[in-house]
Amino acid sequence: MAINVVIAGPRGKMGSEAVKMVENETNFRLVACIDHKNNGRTLDTIFPDVERSIPIYDDATKCFENHKDADVLIELSVPQAGYKHTKSALEHHVRPVVGTTGFTEVQLKELDEFAQRNNMGCMIIPNFALGAVLMMKFAKMAATYFPDVDIIEKHHDQKLDAPSGTAIKTAELISENRKAKTQGHPKEEETIPGARGADLDGIKLHSVRLPGLVAHQEVIFGSPGQTLTIKHDSMDRSSFMDGVKLCVNKVMEVKGLIYGLDTIL
Amino acid sequence: MAINVVIAGPRGKMGSEAVKMVENETNFRLVACIDHKNNGRTLDTIFPDVERSIPIYDDATKCFENHKDADVLIELSVPQAGYKHTKSALEHHVRPVVGTTGFTEVQLKELDEFAQRNNMGCMIIPNFALGAVLMMKFAKMAATYFPDVDIIEKHHDQKLDAPSGTAIKTAELISENRKAKTQGHPKEEETIPGARGADLDGIKLHSVRLPGLVAHQEVIFGSPGQTLTIKHDSMDRSSFMDGVKLCVNKVMEVKGLIYGLDTIL
Amino acid sequence: MAINVVIAGPRGKMGSEAVKMVENETNFRLVACIDHKNNGRTLDTIFPDVERSIPIYDDATKCFENHKDADVLIELSVPQAGYKHTKSALEHHVRPVVGTTGFTEVQLKELDEFAQRNNMGCMIIPNFALGAVLMMKFAKMAATYFPDVDIIEKHHDQKLDAPSGTAIKTAELISENRKAKTQGHPKEEETIPGARGADLDGIKLHSVRLPGLVAHQEVIFGSPGQTLTIKHDSMDRSSFMDGVKLCVNKVMEVKGLIYGLDTIL
Amino acid sequence: MAINVVIAGPRGKMGSEAVKMVENETNFRLVACIDHKNNGRTLDTIFPDVERSIPIYDDATKCFENHKDADVLIELSVPQAGYKHTKSALEHHVRPVVGTTGFTEVQLKELDEFAQRNNMGCMIIPNFALGAVLMMKFAKMAATYFPDVDIIEKHHDQKLDAPSGTAIKTAELISENRKAKTQGHPKEEETIPGARGADLDGIKLHSVRLPGLVAHQEVIFGSPGQTLTIKHDSMDRSSFMDGVKLCVNKVMEVKGLIYGLDTIL
Repeated sequence: MAINVVIAGPRGKMGSEAVKMVENETNFRLVACIDHKNNGRTLDTIFPDVERSIPIYDDATKCFENHKDADVLIELSVPQAGYKHTKSALEHHVRPVVGTTGFTEVQLKELDEFAQRNNMGCMIIPNFALGAVLMMKFAKMAATYFPDVDIIEKHHDQKLDAPSGTAIKTAELISENRKAKTQGHPKEEETIPGARGADLDGIKLHSVRLPGLVAHQEVIFGSPGQTLTIKHDSMDRSSFMDGVKLCVNKVMEVKGLIYGLDTIL
Repeated sequence: MAINVVIAGPRGKMGSEAVKMVENETNFRLVACIDHKNNGRTLDTIFPDVERSIPIYDDATKCFENHKDADVLIELSVPQAGYKHTKSALEHHVRPVVGTTGFTEVQLKELDEFAQRNNMGCMIIPNFALGAVLMMKFAKMAATYFPDVDIIEKHHDQKLDAPSGTAIKTAELISENRKAKTQGHPKEEETIPGARGADLDGIKLHSVRLPGLVAHQEVIFGSPGQTLTIKHDSMDRSSFMDGVKLCVNKVMEVKGLIYGLDTIL
Repeated sequence: MAINVVIAGPRGKMGSEAVKMVENETNFRLVACIDHKNNGRTLDTIFPDVERSIPIYDDATKCFENHKDADVLIELSVPQAGYKHTKSALEHHVRPVVGTTGFTEVQLKELDEFAQRNNMGCMIIPNFALGAVLMMKFAKMAATYFPDVDIIEKHHDQKLDAPSGTAIKTAELISENRKAKTQGHPKEEETIPGARGADLDGIKLHSVRLPGLVAHQEVIFGSPGQTLTIKHDSMDRSSFMDGVKLCVNKVMEVKGLIYGLDTIL
Repeated sequence: MAINVVIAGPRGKMGSEAVKMVENETNFRLVACIDHKNNGRTLDTIFPDVERSIPIYDDATKCFENHKDADVLIELSVPQAGYKHTKSALEHHVRPVVGTTGFTEVQLKELDEFAQRNNMGCMIIPNFALGAVLMMKFAKMAATYFPDVDIIEKHHDQKLDAPSGTAIKTAELISENRKAKTQGHPKEEETIPGARGADLDGIKLHSVRLPGLVAHQEVIFGSPGQTLTIKHDSMDRSSFMDGVKLCVNKVMEVKGLIYGLDTIL
């Protein structure tokens, strides 16, 4: 039987991808949208590709009252609205899959308790990039056996920060799984400063920035006679939808709050 | 405290690497070797790099009787001798780490029961290539989330079989973890036969053979907007020693027979 | 001084990228467009991003008569119109850079003679992908020194033909520059048919098709102890614009007909 | 007809590879060796793999007098002896292919004039790594069209200097062929110092050091919508022999001094 889905934030970058994904997935059925604009209109008047008339509400409570068959809320609106939508979903027995951020510890605890009490799943997922999360998981696992590792991340040349957040996160996860160590030859010398990259707990991070690149990372483990590389290439935002899809299915099975994609892989 | 090691087959390709590895590892101590040749000689007369006088025996039983402090046997001789050495090791309370193949089901069962009864570990490891085994493990895990996958393996041009055994094994493991499916466009057409590679349960395998290559494999998973790649590059036989090292440490902790490196990762 | 440009086919996939490119390039100035629709309108009514009022003509002759300052025609319309536009451009002393195909030998000869006589450049470029053309050029050069080569091309799984046209073209160029040879071990055997890929003059071609891929090719040369790899990754149609830009500059300097991007690199 | 070869320095790392190469090449015939040790012995007493009795001389002049059929000297001994061997070869009408370094400007001029006068070729080649030299040549060519470039070089973790000499040389060659430019976003920021690598004329160089790596470099060019990558992987010293082979053939055809492999590709 299909899972009935409500999407909050259908006009955003992630939200519009989610609309496409849910419409294309045979097991999912889009029943309504929550949008602070466009109350009372239908989705086909905004997205020409959508064929069915799906109602839009600016009020989450009203939405859930009118759609008692809703199973899952995909919450991709803005932080200010995220908590309210999530809370309202749970109260109407709709399981939230939440991509918005900015929840406080107190809110998370409250959502968890409410979900537990009502025997429902609730997922808060700061990063839906399934491929990137798997890369990090595998990298952490590999570090147990191969403690020597360099990370190369490559992005378009409009990116401001180096290293990328994902590279830093990956290095931190690896750090949890290996003994602290200094890599390279003890007498190693940079004849031009920066050659050996950024250092995070002894792990070397290298940031390539070029036009034509999108978002790429490779984690290279070396040991005598061999290297093991975990590589993720992300082309566009559609790559997040595999993660959203996975969560919509998963939230139907779990109880209580789940935080982060890595915990369910 | 150091682990006292006996090596069977010290002159073979794997065996001579193992001698080097054990000698270099501060936690391991080589106490004797088993070799059907050179009985009564010492290892330094064969390997100039070995500095200490390590005795060589052609008889496993005599070896273990003379070295009651032996903890682990690294068995890398030939199939005909492998079982005998392994059995003898267990009888003298020396834990076997076995790279030789050709054990029968009956022998495996017997070794397991003996090891269990005596509260000892015994490991039979057909493939010590830790990096390759991790690659396969990660590939199997990734297949749960990304069912579309091609495998490219690259070897030197003296290799006779294509695809490689590792590529086939990887595809079989992936197959266990994904629903059967046909990849590519249904109307896909090879204008030159073979372009799309070998097909194993719908997974495409591509074999590159060139001088200058050693042994390489990449497993590429694709899903909308992203790819995830697991890649292993093996340069020489020294790459097996990380696996041997891991097993020597592990066999001290486990009870009963362990078959295959993947089961302990 | 800026080069004044006319674009034919501004609404097409390539044409609309060309409009963007010319508008962003400080040395180029878009003066008019040729389009069988929209005669008399201005470009800003079609492309909201275009700020200046650039006139649109359905008739090439009228366009060139009204814009005597035009230097270059970028012809990206359809084969039926391509020849007519190109001829008219030359007659009005506007140098054509032509991406449309379908010119006959007779037409090419005529255009060349006309251009020569009038001391003008004229470029017909079936493939503007500068990176891909460079990859092919380097591959052909490398083949002189490294005759052993495999080609791996990777595309999205909606592509129908395998191997790709670029892979076939690359193999043909390599073939011109190496003696015919059989690669791999003479006793090599495919245990699953297709593993060693498609064979073109002894060169092996491997086609990977996966969701998440766009258009990628690597040409791998092997010789004892080393490999040399030329790799091109194309993300979207914007990658053609470097080639168009190069040609617009080049056509101002050359005399007579130039066919193909490779001839000017 | 075979080319008769004399090798100076047959016991060195490069020299012993050269002996193997010449013996395996059907067009080459090894006629003598020059070695400051082993005068009067034959090569088969030193290298068990060599089957024929090839005489060894400690004096170059005596060697060339006894072997008037010698065509080419492969000089791979030490800097102190290199000039003397080379001079003597030219005087006996034997064409030198020289891998030793340390020649002065005056010596180079003298060798050139002597070779010109006698209508002979003479090659001094500081780097026989054909694949690396091609990589640099292609990188320099590509820089004309794609000015944005990062270089990643990867070496074993016993290497002391970073970036590698080849990476620096590559960046310098690229610099000759592109206008000076700053890459990346003007407001780019390293949150961990070194992330963006070493900077050489605006080109970013990244040095990876890991056990299991040998010697690898990739030069990545980026432009909107595409990247072009030139990659060289070197596994061992045998990779230099393609360059030596090429030079032995080439030195028979040229007149005067040739310096560097790049000048003949």
